[in-house]
Amino acid sequence: MQSSFTISYPSSRKIYLKGKLHDIQVGMREVTLLDTVLVENGRERREKNAPVAVYDTSGAYSDNNAAIDISKGLPRLREAWIAGRNDTEELTAFSSGYCNKRLSDPALDAVRFPVTRLPRRAAAGKEITQMYYARQGIITPEMEYVAIRENMRNDTLGIATHITPEFVRNEIAAGRAIIPANPNHPEAEPMIIGTNFLVKINTNIGNSALSSGIAEEVEKAVWSCKWGGDTLMDLSTGSNIHETREWIIRNLPVPIGTVPLYQALEKVNGEIDSLTWDIYRDTLIEQCEQGVDYFTIHAGLLKAHLPLVKNRITGIVSRGGSIIANWMMRHGKENLFHTHFEDICAILKQYDVAVSLGDGLRPGSIGDASDAAQFAELSVLGDLALTAWKHHVQVLIEGPGHVPMHQIRANMDEQVKHCHGAPFYTLGPLTTDVAPGYDHITSAIGAAQIARYGAAMICYVTPKEHLGLPDREDVRAGVVAYRIAAHAADLAKGHPGAQVRDNALSKARFDFRWRDQFNLSLDPEKALEYYRAGRLGDENDHCTMCGPHFCAMKLTRKLSENCDFRQEQDAAPPAS
Amino acid sequence: MQSSFTISYPSSRKIYLKGKLHDIQVGMREVTLLDTVLVENGRERREKNAPVAVYDTSGAYSDNNAAIDISKGLPRLREAWIAGRNDTEELTAFSSGYCNKRLSDPALDAVRFPVTRLPRRAAAGKEITQMYYARQGIITPEMEYVAIRENMRNDTLGIATHITPEFVRNEIAAGRAIIPANPNHPEAEPMIIGTNFLVKINTNIGNSALSSGIAEEVEKAVWSCKWGGDTLMDLSTGSNIHETREWIIRNLPVPIGTVPLYQALEKVNGEIDSLTWDIYRDTLIEQCEQGVDYFTIHAGLLKAHLPLVKNRITGIVSRGGSIIANWMMRHGKENLFHTHFEDICAILKQYDVAVSLGDGLRPGSIGDASDAAQFAELSVLGDLALTAWKHHVQVLIEGPGHVPMHQIRANMDEQVKHCHGAPFYTLGPLTTDVAPGYDHITSAIGAAQIARYGAAMICYVTPKEHLGLPDREDVRAGVVAYRIAAHAADLAKGHPGAQVRDNALSKARFDFRWRDQFNLSLDPEKALEYYRAGRLGDENDHCTMCGPHFCAMKLTRKLSENCDFRQEQDAAPPAS
Repeated sequence: MQSSFTISYPSSRKIYLKGKLHDIQVGMREVTLLDTVLVENGRERREKNAPVAVYDTSGAYSDNNAAIDISKGLPRLREAWIAGRNDTEELTAFSSGYCNKRLSDPALDAVRFPVTRLPRRAAAGKEITQMYYARQGIITPEMEYVAIRENMRNDTLGIATHITPEFVRNEIAAGRAIIPANPNHPEAEPMIIGTNFLVKINTNIGNSALSSGIAEEVEKAVWSCKWGGDTLMDLSTGSNIHETREWIIRNLPVPIGTVPLYQALEKVNGEIDSLTWDIYRDTLIEQCEQGVDYFTIHAGLLKAHLPLVKNRITGIVSRGGSIIANWMMRHGKENLFHTHFEDICAILKQYDVAVSLGDGLRPGSIGDASDAAQFAELSVLGDLALTAWKHHVQVLIEGPGHVPMHQIRANMDEQVKHCHGAPFYTLGPLTTDVAPGYDHITSAIGAAQIARYGAAMICYVTPKEHLGLPDREDVRAGVVAYRIAAHAADLAKGHPGAQVRDNALSKARFDFRWRDQFNLSLDPEKALEYYRAGRLGDENDHCTMCGPHFCAMKLTRKLSENCDFRQEQDAAPPAS
Repeated sequence: MQSSFTISYPSSRKIYLKGKLHDIQVGMREVTLLDTVLVENGRERREKNAPVAVYDTSGAYSDNNAAIDISKGLPRLREAWIAGRNDTEELTAFSSGYCNKRLSDPALDAVRFPVTRLPRRAAAGKEITQMYYARQGIITPEMEYVAIRENMRNDTLGIATHITPEFVRNEIAAGRAIIPANPNHPEAEPMIIGTNFLVKINTNIGNSALSSGIAEEVEKAVWSCKWGGDTLMDLSTGSNIHETREWIIRNLPVPIGTVPLYQALEKVNGEIDSLTWDIYRDTLIEQCEQGVDYFTIHAGLLKAHLPLVKNRITGIVSRGGSIIANWMMRHGKENLFHTHFEDICAILKQYDVAVSLGDGLRPGSIGDASDAAQFAELSVLGDLALTAWKHHVQVLIEGPGHVPMHQIRANMDEQVKHCHGAPFYTLGPLTTDVAPGYDHITSAIGAAQIARYGAAMICYVTPKEHLGLPDREDVRAGVVAYRIAAHAADLAKGHPGAQVRDNALSKARFDFRWRDQFNLSLDPEKALEYYRAGRLGDENDHCTMCGPHFCAMKLTRKLSENCDFRQEQDAAPPAS
């Protein structure tokens, strides 16, 4: 098994900003820039360009000083904070029967993560969720961490911000934001998901029929963090998913989500009829004790909703939704996740696992968008959010799917109306069905807009959506498309300091500091590769797109150098 | 030189719809579909799926019965219509001195298009623009053609439409739409650009420093039509651009645009100081007589605007804008395109060449978006539109560029306010600067939105934007991204019948008619390639994304087949 792999970004270094309330170090990436070279009266003059701090999801992998060994796992950043709260206890054994069976099976020694640590759970009578702390007025290290992280050192640039640790606390107390932070995943760097913060993106990995191998899955997961994935959902449905998940959790610097139903169904060999609450409950506990940070649970799809689906073009397209719909029909019973929802919350609160309320009836085509089935379920999700909050369980609400552009705003408004401010977490949405092979684009168009209107996290879609499992390059294409959508939304929402990077990159472009332009971009490697395909040296003052005589920026510079039009500031305004 | 090349789309055939007012045949692509196979009570039942007609920009290249020979050029579709109007005359010689020089140069025999036809021009005292005809109440064959083309046979599906030949005429008369249709480019199929019609996309080709060769340029141009380019701008700045353009015009089924300034500047060896009205005027006439359908002319950038640029991050990023700005500063004179605008219109009206009023001051970065310089020029463009309309010259207004999402609507509103309803033709806009290498995506996000709000045509951006000249795959990526943006906007605008293709594709997806799903998509080859990468046979009822046990659509089908939930239509509505 690969023993170490690191991430590097060109002209970048890892920096750490200290907390004021807590003894914390917030990791960030700093991009160093070249000087601007100006020609004035025929003489060269140099101007310094300040380094730019950018949000960084790569954790210790991009820290030259960190020793990475995936068989040991990442440093346990939050361990001391959790212990310091004195409200959790280390158990003497795992609570899940399935987990214990896997641990004691010698046939699994070869695939098992080498280090086994006992899990932590809320001590008797203690509440340990970030929402609980926030409601008590407590600013945790996690809250201060995300406040610093969101601001990307903007205070040093004189940019005013509303994002203080107290603002974070208040948002979490109100349910408008969450920090997914299971004490059993202390390796994860705290991050926040909420309308009033930077838009986040989720990436998915997961083998289906044939396992793609543990090392490959871990590498793919780290790969998604390299490009900017903020959280990662492990949607594996193959063999050894318990062990694969352990490797991923121990090695990921971002929160992990799952759909526990998938594994529960594997445990009954895919036979939907055989699924029981006991099996599901044991799966929840198994995953809570491994360190999963949030669960997608399709608790809002009710029996009464099924007739609303009958005239749809594409029926039910959520995997979880279709499973639970079949379960309800076969048993003639109400959705067991709905009937057991209080039981579920009682488990989740002991591990501060957030619930992501799944939209089993999300539309799977433009023709099915915004229909009665979708909104009937959404309303139930809103009710369930209130139930979860009663237990101080943090909540996300999942959303569509496929939505034409003129309905995107209305989809966001409906969510706000029904869900009491809980963060909206959408899959895309795709804005047309006609482009399989390009659904990272059809959906980035929708994701950018719904994020602008308030969706807090957008789940990425790769070019292979509807067609097959994504490979590494598909993951990269999907993550970058969604980083674009998220950043475009941050700009449109006026997030403090979001434009710093755009301005720095554009100034580099105007200065013909090609390397700086690439280094500040979301994918420096791709930009450099495309530039090099033009077969010019690195520091030319034009590219092959316009050639030397027609480069507008070169001509503007000439204008400014020779004619000094920049000094004509007292000229008359345009006549028109 | 390649003598023939054809375009084929899977399971598709070329169909022609007849006109009612005129003897015309409107080309379209029809996609044939497989049957839906249903299982009812254990028995198989088949349902026919009607073929789907889709808008087609590939002209005769996709007609199996057409003989393609690029050394002869495409069939001259509009020749008889033009002759039948009896208002143009065939000249006895070309009017441009430069053109005659090129024609008589034996050194150019090897690169010259083999057939030379004399040009047509308005007969003395005649007005020949589509706008003029429309204002006289005349419905031309071109107007009926686009009405049929826009409707894609929707009448046979019972879809109501407002797009009649008379509606087309009225829109053109009002200046809200244009049909670029130079009588010297009779090979082009009529198409319409206007807010109340399908959103169109423009593609660009053009060599810069080193010529990429005539055959390659023609092939690249046809390639862009294959993927769905509605118009094509030839932005070549290299050698032999007169001859290259002739080859392209003779072989393209879509309208051609140029920026005549580029060639005029080549004629003075790139020396901006040496550019004169006479040289520019001769270039306009040269290109009018070749058959260019619309010209970008940067007539709105005035001397008084230059000081407004001084605090910009990226100055002037329009090639034409930077050239004319330098020209004004060097000569201390007003923009010659502005001072000669009436002269320009007097030329254009004789060939029904539309003017696309260039935005030389479009913002080149998010930080420069929507600034005083941009809007000052926009206001002048609105004034110029009125001047052009006085001459019955058809008008487009060019727009940005780089715009953050929250300013897109305002950009459209400003255009409407200043430009009297003339169609808006935008470059993107890019919604963030931070992703060179992915600007087809950063800009498709913006293009979809501005098109939704009313932009009539969006100019594509390829992944190589800012980095180098696009190759074939870049052109394909750019065109498909923009077809997505345009179609997403058509859906959002409620264009009659726009959703037919989405519905048909999604039904195919739900039916596991994989081939139909791909054949209906914007890029069938890419979808099939990605699907095959999953290494499954063609007609499986699941893909590698979810595997056989977790396919939601398969499970929904099972639900419907076994439990018949679709019949529960009298069940109670959801409680919530």
